[in-house]
Amino acid sequence: MDIGSIAGLVITIILLFTAMAMGVGIGPYIDVPSIFIVFGGTLGTLLIGFRPEQLKKVGKIFMVAIKPPQLNPKKTIESIIEYATKARKEGILGIEGDLQNEEDEFLKKGLSLAVDGVEPDSIREILENDIEQMSARHADNALIFGQIAGFAGAMGMIGTLIGLVAMLLNMADPAAIGPAMAVALLTTMYGAILGNVFGTPIENILTLRSKDEINLKTIILEGIMAIQAGDNPRNIETKLFAFLNPADRESQFDK
Amino acid sequence: MDIGSIAGLVITIILLFTAMAMGVGIGPYIDVPSIFIVFGGTLGTLLIGFRPEQLKKVGKIFMVAIKPPQLNPKKTIESIIEYATKARKEGILGIEGDLQNEEDEFLKKGLSLAVDGVEPDSIREILENDIEQMSARHADNALIFGQIAGFAGAMGMIGTLIGLVAMLLNMADPAAIGPAMAVALLTTMYGAILGNVFGTPIENILTLRSKDEINLKTIILEGIMAIQAGDNPRNIETKLFAFLNPADRESQFDK
Amino acid sequence: MDIGSIAGLVITIILLFTAMAMGVGIGPYIDVPSIFIVFGGTLGTLLIGFRPEQLKKVGKIFMVAIKPPQLNPKKTIESIIEYATKARKEGILGIEGDLQNEEDEFLKKGLSLAVDGVEPDSIREILENDIEQMSARHADNALIFGQIAGFAGAMGMIGTLIGLVAMLLNMADPAAIGPAMAVALLTTMYGAILGNVFGTPIENILTLRSKDEINLKTIILEGIMAIQAGDNPRNIETKLFAFLNPADRESQFDK
Amino acid sequence: MDIGSIAGLVITIILLFTAMAMGVGIGPYIDVPSIFIVFGGTLGTLLIGFRPEQLKKVGKIFMVAIKPPQLNPKKTIESIIEYATKARKEGILGIEGDLQNEEDEFLKKGLSLAVDGVEPDSIREILENDIEQMSARHADNALIFGQIAGFAGAMGMIGTLIGLVAMLLNMADPAAIGPAMAVALLTTMYGAILGNVFGTPIENILTLRSKDEINLKTIILEGIMAIQAGDNPRNIETKLFAFLNPADRESQFDK
Amino acid sequence: MDIGSIAGLVITIILLFTAMAMGVGIGPYIDVPSIFIVFGGTLGTLLIGFRPEQLKKVGKIFMVAIKPPQLNPKKTIESIIEYATKARKEGILGIEGDLQNEEDEFLKKGLSLAVDGVEPDSIREILENDIEQMSARHADNALIFGQIAGFAGAMGMIGTLIGLVAMLLNMADPAAIGPAMAVALLTTMYGAILGNVFGTPIENILTLRSKDEINLKTIILEGIMAIQAGDNPRNIETKLFAFLNPADRESQFDK
Repeated sequence: MDIGSIAGLVITIILLFTAMAMGVGIGPYIDVPSIFIVFGGTLGTLLIGFRPEQLKKVGKIFMVAIKPPQLNPKKTIESIIEYATKARKEGILGIEGDLQNEEDEFLKKGLSLAVDGVEPDSIREILENDIEQMSARHADNALIFGQIAGFAGAMGMIGTLIGLVAMLLNMADPAAIGPAMAVALLTTMYGAILGNVFGTPIENILTLRSKDEINLKTIILEGIMAIQAGDNPRNIETKLFAFLNPADRESQFDK
Repeated sequence: MDIGSIAGLVITIILLFTAMAMGVGIGPYIDVPSIFIVFGGTLGTLLIGFRPEQLKKVGKIFMVAIKPPQLNPKKTIESIIEYATKARKEGILGIEGDLQNEEDEFLKKGLSLAVDGVEPDSIREILENDIEQMSARHADNALIFGQIAGFAGAMGMIGTLIGLVAMLLNMADPAAIGPAMAVALLTTMYGAILGNVFGTPIENILTLRSKDEINLKTIILEGIMAIQAGDNPRNIETKLFAFLNPADRESQFDK
Repeated sequence: MDIGSIAGLVITIILLFTAMAMGVGIGPYIDVPSIFIVFGGTLGTLLIGFRPEQLKKVGKIFMVAIKPPQLNPKKTIESIIEYATKARKEGILGIEGDLQNEEDEFLKKGLSLAVDGVEPDSIREILENDIEQMSARHADNALIFGQIAGFAGAMGMIGTLIGLVAMLLNMADPAAIGPAMAVALLTTMYGAILGNVFGTPIENILTLRSKDEINLKTIILEGIMAIQAGDNPRNIETKLFAFLNPADRESQFDK
Repeated sequence: MDIGSIAGLVITIILLFTAMAMGVGIGPYIDVPSIFIVFGGTLGTLLIGFRPEQLKKVGKIFMVAIKPPQLNPKKTIESIIEYATKARKEGILGIEGDLQNEEDEFLKKGLSLAVDGVEPDSIREILENDIEQMSARHADNALIFGQIAGFAGAMGMIGTLIGLVAMLLNMADPAAIGPAMAVALLTTMYGAILGNVFGTPIENILTLRSKDEINLKTIILEGIMAIQAGDNPRNIETKLFAFLNPADRESQFDK
Repeated sequence: MDIGSIAGLVITIILLFTAMAMGVGIGPYIDVPSIFIVFGGTLGTLLIGFRPEQLKKVGKIFMVAIKPPQLNPKKTIESIIEYATKARKEGILGIEGDLQNEEDEFLKKGLSLAVDGVEPDSIREILENDIEQMSARHADNALIFGQIAGFAGAMGMIGTLIGLVAMLLNMADPAAIGPAMAVALLTTMYGAILGNVFGTPIENILTLRSKDEINLKTIILEGIMAIQAGDNPRNIETKLFAFLNPADRESQFDK
């Protein structure tokens, strides 16, 4: 569970409701038709441009965003070093047995290719293509939330224009002008909240998570290539440590 | 027929009309001269910058967007594997007969080149150039809808400015100010709707469809290169599966 | 003469004048000082950033934009195939005589280099550099119109601010407020029209024309390289057809 | 201590407070709930998208931004030349002893690899990867401040909309309208200040500092490669001087 | 002296002052505190992000922008052809004497390297690095003016918000509202003028000048490489002419 994302969402929403409550209470800020226009319209415009399969995944992607898979590049490096040490002692075929229990699918796939004797260039090509395709899928997912931000803002503005026109045509009763304009502004407010509390930050989070995952898979790729080339485990560690924050580079050989 | 796009368009438009109907009725939101300014002006500015042939295709492109060709990369891979299996048994010339019935023009063209004994590098160059040219045509098509979004917004703003100036010069009758300003705002509203319900989502959809088609053609390209190189069908499948979503990677060899 | 661009400009301008005429007549929309601020200011800011030689060309570039050179890639390919056929029969020197009458300067230059026996790599380098330099010049030209759009909008806003300040300092006579504000808004309107009817669409058109010209010159480049390599005319046609729309790929060998 | 950044911050803030003091005094510009909405909301939306570890570093990154490590590329080049001179006289192993006292970790690491006899290509790959990873970390850090600018503006706008709606629903007392609207505008003002005085300039500073550090590390990388290749110290200096401003290129051989 | 830039600045400023003078006179548009907020605030935010050394150069960079070094690629090519002719007759060492009088530092440096017998690949690498570093310095300089445009707009908006809040809190005297709002708008106006008359156009000019200088240095680089390779002067001219506008390609061999 990613405490940060949940906390951020909760803090922001509580702040906004508190701000509303302090003035005229939360009630006047809730207008069901305006909610329909902004949320429904954003969903509608998304449906026009994205495939339904993609949108069905929005909930799942959202869960990935706020509860991401736990990536631990440091531990992955340790585990690569173990394979490297064994491969250096017993030959690459020596690691075949251990692969059964490997939980990381990407590491398992790459090492299996190495064990099967596939050419280094082919292994690199296959794994790089895997990373590229994953990166493209991630970018598509993030794009959905980026577009939510854009469409929510537009729908908010369209709703406000619809409301303003209605208000301008009904100016006989001056006392009604204020409330009518207040309601007209609500769609803009909903659009801004939907876009800036839900759309852009989730796009942001997905982009960062994707970078982390690409980084991890690149570590694995370089590790496999080095194992196959029969490199010294210590050198492999030095090489892979470049992908970690300097603070995390604690060699297992120095323990 | 792409149910999603149609549904999205219909939902969004119904929502907007409902929003209008709830206030002062749909009638006041329909102003023929404003429609002319925004739609005509957007068309006019598009005509300045795009070739008439391109604009004539807008309707066709729109239909492609909402009723896209059915791409089935999984089935394409199966069919490549069949060719690969036959080519491995009977040699590359063995698939010549089957090519007559191949429906995918790109696959047919590429395999014909292979059967004709054209050099691998030339085949790759020819097919990559085909993909690149197709991608450029797609980008041009998507650009038209992107520009519709931009020009519609601008025309909406110009129309509102024209209306505001007229209103400001006729402020003798206070009762007329509201309705005049309401009409002035209509062009901005039309521009925002045209741009955000029609322009940007269709640009969006065309870009995604283009990616899908490029992906499919890249699968075919890599498949043909592998067939020509005489690769093992199972290895070809592994390689091409990288282009699919992980969920779709169900090997036909495991059936 | 490019009918489309002219028609687009005329339609857009007529629409805008009609919109003005329907309200308070065209007269009130014409304010000479405002025109000076927006058009003069846009010219002034352009002069700051672009060289006078470049700006002198604006008229010429505008004419190129609305009356582009007629490019016919299909006919160019036919003509390349003719050279290829002759070169294959009589050797590359056999086309020397025909080059005198070649109207396309780029094709003439490239084939002359081939006839003179310049190395293929050098020919490619020279022609690619030519294309790149042309592309850079085109981009500079398009940039001028892009900047017109940006500066016109800014000058319009500055003019409106100047007008608003004057209006706010003279609010003693309420009847004068409306007209004063109307005049203040005119510069924003001029800026939006100058930017969106003249600036962005012309930038747009120049970018598309440049792509077409680069495409044509790339066809010529690839054709010359193939002629020099002594390729089969039919293969050359297949290769060059990739640069055409699928609809235009009608082989002269199938006639 | 980077006097410039501190001075800039202080000057800007004093200017803004003076501007406030000249009108109605600073007091009315300070509204605690508005501060909570903008600052808290910006923090909340950042928390949604960034990992808590990253946000914890914001203070540290801010200090790096305003008190950057002192980089002295000129002195680094001098020190590289010294190593090069010694390596040329005594062989690359001759510099092993001096490395103990080398304070620059990157230079030390690279030269150690050279002394250990690692292949030039591997050294380059390891060091380039180090630079790339550092550059990616820097970009992530700068992005946080870029997002602060974006979210602060959005939160400011949302706050103003909440305030406007409250004001529009309470228009019974005309005297209260002005002050209520004033308070509503404060969140927009806070958002603009937070974004433009704190967000964008710090993003800016971090980007420039990162470029400087990449430049320094590139000098070191090229220097190490040249030392290992046994280049003439004077030639190394000429090569590395290209990375300095022309004004700083004062050769130590000309002294 | 670049007449165009000066003329553009003068025309634009005169136009703006005339526009002011026509309404209420120039006086009311000059408000010293507003000037301090916008100009001081822009300077302050620049100081936060840029190093003081860089900002000290702003005046110098501005002079370079409006009074650029006179670049004459045509004359540079002529001079390269002369060196090439001499080098072909007397060998590369034959040009050593002429180099003393060469005014172009870059040409002198490159030819000296060739005369000293440095390897072609090394010469290219050194000169390309020089061009790249120059280009990076130019981009940094242009960025300062781009940021001036951004910060000036932001400071203008912040100033207007400060003024609006003050006005809204003092609405007791209706007659004071207009003038107070007029003053509040002045900072937005100053920001728009500073950004669009000084910031963006100078950024623009610096970018274009940088391209010209890169183009000239690329001509020199390619010329030196060709001289060292002992190419025929006429061929060198043909090659270098690609970097000129077609209109300027008047061969000295055809005179």
